[in-house]
Amino acid sequence: MKKIVVIGGGTGVFTVLSGLKEYSYHLSAIVTIADDGGSSGILREEFGILPPGDIRRALVALSSSSPFLAKLFQYRFKNGEGLKGHNFGNLFLTALEGLTGDFNQAVKEAGNILGIKGEVIPVSLENTRLFARLENDLLVIGESNIDAPKHDGSLAIKEVFLNPLAKANKEALQIIKKADVIIIGPGDLYTSIIPNFLVKGVKEAVKKSRAKKVYVCNIMTKYGETNHFTAERFLSVLEKYLGKGVIDYFLINVEKPKKSFLEKYKKEKAELVKYDKKYLSALKRPKVIFTKLVRNSSLLRHDPKKLAQAINRIFR
Amino acid sequence: MKKIVVIGGGTGVFTVLSGLKEYSYHLSAIVTIADDGGSSGILREEFGILPPGDIRRALVALSSSSPFLAKLFQYRFKNGEGLKGHNFGNLFLTALEGLTGDFNQAVKEAGNILGIKGEVIPVSLENTRLFARLENDLLVIGESNIDAPKHDGSLAIKEVFLNPLAKANKEALQIIKKADVIIIGPGDLYTSIIPNFLVKGVKEAVKKSRAKKVYVCNIMTKYGETNHFTAERFLSVLEKYLGKGVIDYFLINVEKPKKSFLEKYKKEKAELVKYDKKYLSALKRPKVIFTKLVRNSSLLRHDPKKLAQAINRIFR
Repeated sequence: MKKIVVIGGGTGVFTVLSGLKEYSYHLSAIVTIADDGGSSGILREEFGILPPGDIRRALVALSSSSPFLAKLFQYRFKNGEGLKGHNFGNLFLTALEGLTGDFNQAVKEAGNILGIKGEVIPVSLENTRLFARLENDLLVIGESNIDAPKHDGSLAIKEVFLNPLAKANKEALQIIKKADVIIIGPGDLYTSIIPNFLVKGVKEAVKKSRAKKVYVCNIMTKYGETNHFTAERFLSVLEKYLGKGVIDYFLINVEKPKKSFLEKYKKEKAELVKYDKKYLSALKRPKVIFTKLVRNSSLLRHDPKKLAQAINRIFR
Repeated sequence: MKKIVVIGGGTGVFTVLSGLKEYSYHLSAIVTIADDGGSSGILREEFGILPPGDIRRALVALSSSSPFLAKLFQYRFKNGEGLKGHNFGNLFLTALEGLTGDFNQAVKEAGNILGIKGEVIPVSLENTRLFARLENDLLVIGESNIDAPKHDGSLAIKEVFLNPLAKANKEALQIIKKADVIIIGPGDLYTSIIPNFLVKGVKEAVKKSRAKKVYVCNIMTKYGETNHFTAERFLSVLEKYLGKGVIDYFLINVEKPKKSFLEKYKKEKAELVKYDKKYLSALKRPKVIFTKLVRNSSLLRHDPKKLAQAINRIFR
């Protein structure tokens, strides 16, 4: 069975896994641990655990038990002084960590209970913080402050780094080594994708791995992170962190969403990602694949089925 | 398969079910919903749900899935401003109630997830409060204020009642009707046992049921509830609420716990329950069974195995 490893965070990993789950692949998700906002941020601060949110989404995506249990995992408490805003799945992982005293073990036990097909692996088991240096050299501290953004979002990000530098989870490195295919993205470039490659040892493992590496470009830019980014720019920033020539295939969406859907995104200062087809088609490496990937919904995200089919076409 | 219904609350139900689970009975637990203290009390107040604590313990007792999941259900958060003191299982039931909008359904789904053998049924699905009238006519409002006790514990309880009067869960009545054996207790007489029979329709259903009814007397008295109660007194108070002549068998512990264990209980003003063997032996109804029931531990509770064996001896 072909071994596919998905690297990222947030809803991007969820989308890729949900789509690929329908095929007979062995799936693994390597998930960022940089999140420090919302329910995850509170649990991180109050319990000293790794942020559970991204892990939770990946677990749910791979869940093969009742859809009910998966729904429960995503359930967000609407009342309660101390509970409001917390995801039940986050509390599940927090309780498991409390019981086992080991976050990696907690994720495995949650996987067993959810009957996941495949594995979910935190990219690191060390507590760390994501920093961004803006073009004016201002430092923004914490994923949730970069992601929101809480700074002047018109400023470009010059670089991101982890402090303290976290070492990779050994299991993550092993799985990267044995992978046949590595899918990177889609997801917020600086806050969900790149933080994985900032973890010590991950970039080197990806480079060394004989796996074919696919980067899935985002459909929309994100204000404060990737303002006016073209597909070429997405690729070049990723390559800055991962190394030039590492990516084998670059998947770009060419489907135009409905205008009414795009209108909504204007308020968030997000735009459809543009691309220079001529320039990209002439590239020798990565091979660029132009294809329709948009989901028919007001949330302009990748369609899990279309994305999985596009990935299948590359490797079948 | 013989149908056994256990009625009560707290650790008593847990003990009976844990012991009987090893035999091929069909087990059901009908559980009080009077609790309003601790984690249950907070969830009750903030979410308007029925108190999950007693339900949770019964679910765990019947769980046939991994011991790990059962342990997780009992896990109590040790940190977190909003989470500290909450049992994970209580949050589980709260989330399920939030998702299904139906407490009875939430209990069933939790049962499925835990792979329980048998059923756990809240005695009522209506919100109500337990009141106690003391010998000086003072009213104590709320199960947790009676149970703690927050009043002068030297005063005897004259009566307990529910306000508003709650109607029985129909499923509870059906199960009582079809039962072959009904086990009542052990457990706190006024706060875990009697509240079940205060629910409208329960007492009548128990009386009408062709099931053999067993009352398991407590090993220790409880300060503020059953000060200096003898076994005879336990029985007569229960019969006051359930009706005279309803109980067929009355199980009394005759095993003397270690002195050192009893010392600890002195602080809590709890004593070993005494009994008048001559008087009790002469009773025609209920038939009194004197047997060794103490668990070898510093917590003076019933031993699940001994208790189950004593019940087996009656019905085999």
